[in-house]
Amino acid sequence: MTTAGRRDRLTDLLGERGLDGVVITTLVNVRYLTGFTGSNGALVVPREGAPVFLTDGRYRDQAADELPDVEHQIGRDLLGAAADRVAGGTWALETHTLNVDAHLRLSELAPDTTFVPADRIVESLRVVKDEVEVEALRRACDISTRALEMLIEGPLVGRTERAVARDLENRMLDLGAEAIGFETILAAGENSAIPHHSPTDRVLDAGDLVKIDFGARVDGHHADCTRTFVLGRPDDWQREIHAAVRESQAAGLAELREGTAIADSYAAATASLEASGWLHAFTTGLGHGVGLEIHEDPFIGPSQTGKLASRTVLTMEPGIYVPGRGGVRIEDTVLVTTGAPEVLTTMTKDLLEIG
Amino acid sequence: MTTAGRRDRLTDLLGERGLDGVVITTLVNVRYLTGFTGSNGALVVPREGAPVFLTDGRYRDQAADELPDVEHQIGRDLLGAAADRVAGGTWALETHTLNVDAHLRLSELAPDTTFVPADRIVESLRVVKDEVEVEALRRACDISTRALEMLIEGPLVGRTERAVARDLENRMLDLGAEAIGFETILAAGENSAIPHHSPTDRVLDAGDLVKIDFGARVDGHHADCTRTFVLGRPDDWQREIHAAVRESQAAGLAELREGTAIADSYAAATASLEASGWLHAFTTGLGHGVGLEIHEDPFIGPSQTGKLASRTVLTMEPGIYVPGRGGVRIEDTVLVTTGAPEVLTTMTKDLLEIG
Repeated sequence: MTTAGRRDRLTDLLGERGLDGVVITTLVNVRYLTGFTGSNGALVVPREGAPVFLTDGRYRDQAADELPDVEHQIGRDLLGAAADRVAGGTWALETHTLNVDAHLRLSELAPDTTFVPADRIVESLRVVKDEVEVEALRRACDISTRALEMLIEGPLVGRTERAVARDLENRMLDLGAEAIGFETILAAGENSAIPHHSPTDRVLDAGDLVKIDFGARVDGHHADCTRTFVLGRPDDWQREIHAAVRESQAAGLAELREGTAIADSYAAATASLEASGWLHAFTTGLGHGVGLEIHEDPFIGPSQTGKLASRTVLTMEPGIYVPGRGGVRIEDTVLVTTGAPEVLTTMTKDLLEIG
Repeated sequence: MTTAGRRDRLTDLLGERGLDGVVITTLVNVRYLTGFTGSNGALVVPREGAPVFLTDGRYRDQAADELPDVEHQIGRDLLGAAADRVAGGTWALETHTLNVDAHLRLSELAPDTTFVPADRIVESLRVVKDEVEVEALRRACDISTRALEMLIEGPLVGRTERAVARDLENRMLDLGAEAIGFETILAAGENSAIPHHSPTDRVLDAGDLVKIDFGARVDGHHADCTRTFVLGRPDDWQREIHAAVRESQAAGLAELREGTAIADSYAAATASLEASGWLHAFTTGLGHGVGLEIHEDPFIGPSQTGKLASRTVLTMEPGIYVPGRGGVRIEDTVLVTTGAPEVLTTMTKDLLEIG
């Protein structure tokens, strides 16, 4: 779908909700609707008439290149420009990201306009990926998988977490990633018990679990993948927690299907961990949407009320974390379909014995 | 200064302003006040009594390591926990970053508390750097300078913008940067006219201006440096705009001194560009504070009313951008003193002829 098609879907939603327009101030939503990749921009979208893109002078040329089909206005005061463009009636604002001061200023500058929350209107569109997005996510996941496959050919023992993480990142860039999607988590031995561990100078050693949570970015879209391996031969406890996580992940994935409740997937994955006796050691979120943001709607949790739609892209990432000893997480980025989800991060989930 | 010392300064300010406390929800301010480096946390700071740090289960161990001296509470609902901790009276919220929905929810959960804007209370502390911060900034700037000096030994001609940018980034990491501070701008030839250009597959060629805006991060603190060189012998127009930018930068730097008005520095740098006939081609901001954020208070602009304090760290970065031809920017990170500012990014500003 083109960005123009996405904007059409948004104006359809504005009509359904009886809104006269929406001011998009969340940068990633601006990008979704326009293709703009800069760091400062807003989009004024009336229900009727043409949208207007607002940015500052740094992005004059880039806006002309990236948004040939959208009127744009250059200036330093984006909020002031937006206030000039809303013309009475009822307009939505992205109150989940817009800060309080900006909201107050807009309300003062446009006293004849009633502002209401946009209720994540653009995020609701972004939940279902179009072909352009799926293709970018596929490429990001392919690059990530290939980079990890190359990395674990080793040698790894004797190198630091930091050095191995950089090695992996450079391989992703060599393979065509436009950027690293997020700070790589590469955690060895007892550090693998820390869910979100930043790589240190700790040296990888025989017997360590090595947990690697990483992903490439392609055209703004993120891969998100975690694998846990062992350096040398695994101990029994390492095998046990790896098997428990793998089983939990499979149980959760089995419930990711068009029309199923999101909460069912949470229930299945956690029931598996409870059955193996490890639920107490699962201390993070279970999964989340992934796309232009590394964490986006929908989030997988026990109190989620929604049902899954086809072409939603999600992670499934149960883990077991044993403080002071080690931890295992297995995470895939998957595409929801009418049947089994398509796993985009195709790297093996076996407890590989690497060196 | 320790983070405890910073918290003491904050509670002093709360007393001066007659506030009963402040809820810090801006992550970088949480880091400043506690040392916490994770991605989700808040800090409840009463004027009297001990502060409480709030984060989620992922950061249980990390919080224990990084904040041994601050009580912490683990849970998924940080706002709910914060609401429980504010106990009537008048509390400040960081309304410049707190989103509208969160503000509304806090107000509903704590109906007996009056919430007022914090007016960038922590940012006001952060403007003046303490020894710990200056030392981190010095190291970040040293690493950046050394990396660029190594890079320009070349060869550069025949390589892509993207490849040369990665080379520079890897050198910074090799030299001890914990991360790249921001996406490197490496722009050759006509691309150098784009103020914020993302590196592409354009190949560097003889005769090109090469503009490089980059910086290392050390202990969360950012260096920010731009240099523009020429591949081979410069043309007259390249020499002319380089000299004009250099003169403007010197004029702006000369006004960065304890007690001078920030607007004076803007006036000096732009008067220089006007005198050389190039003011129309200067389309970006002139400078900004730099520290835990790559862009932070104070910003250098014509309508800034503040005066400079010693130990403020700023950039000074005039530029000339000629669409379709090329551009020059020269930027330093400098430390304000009672005399001439100390330039932390010590790389030469000559129009080097590199290859």
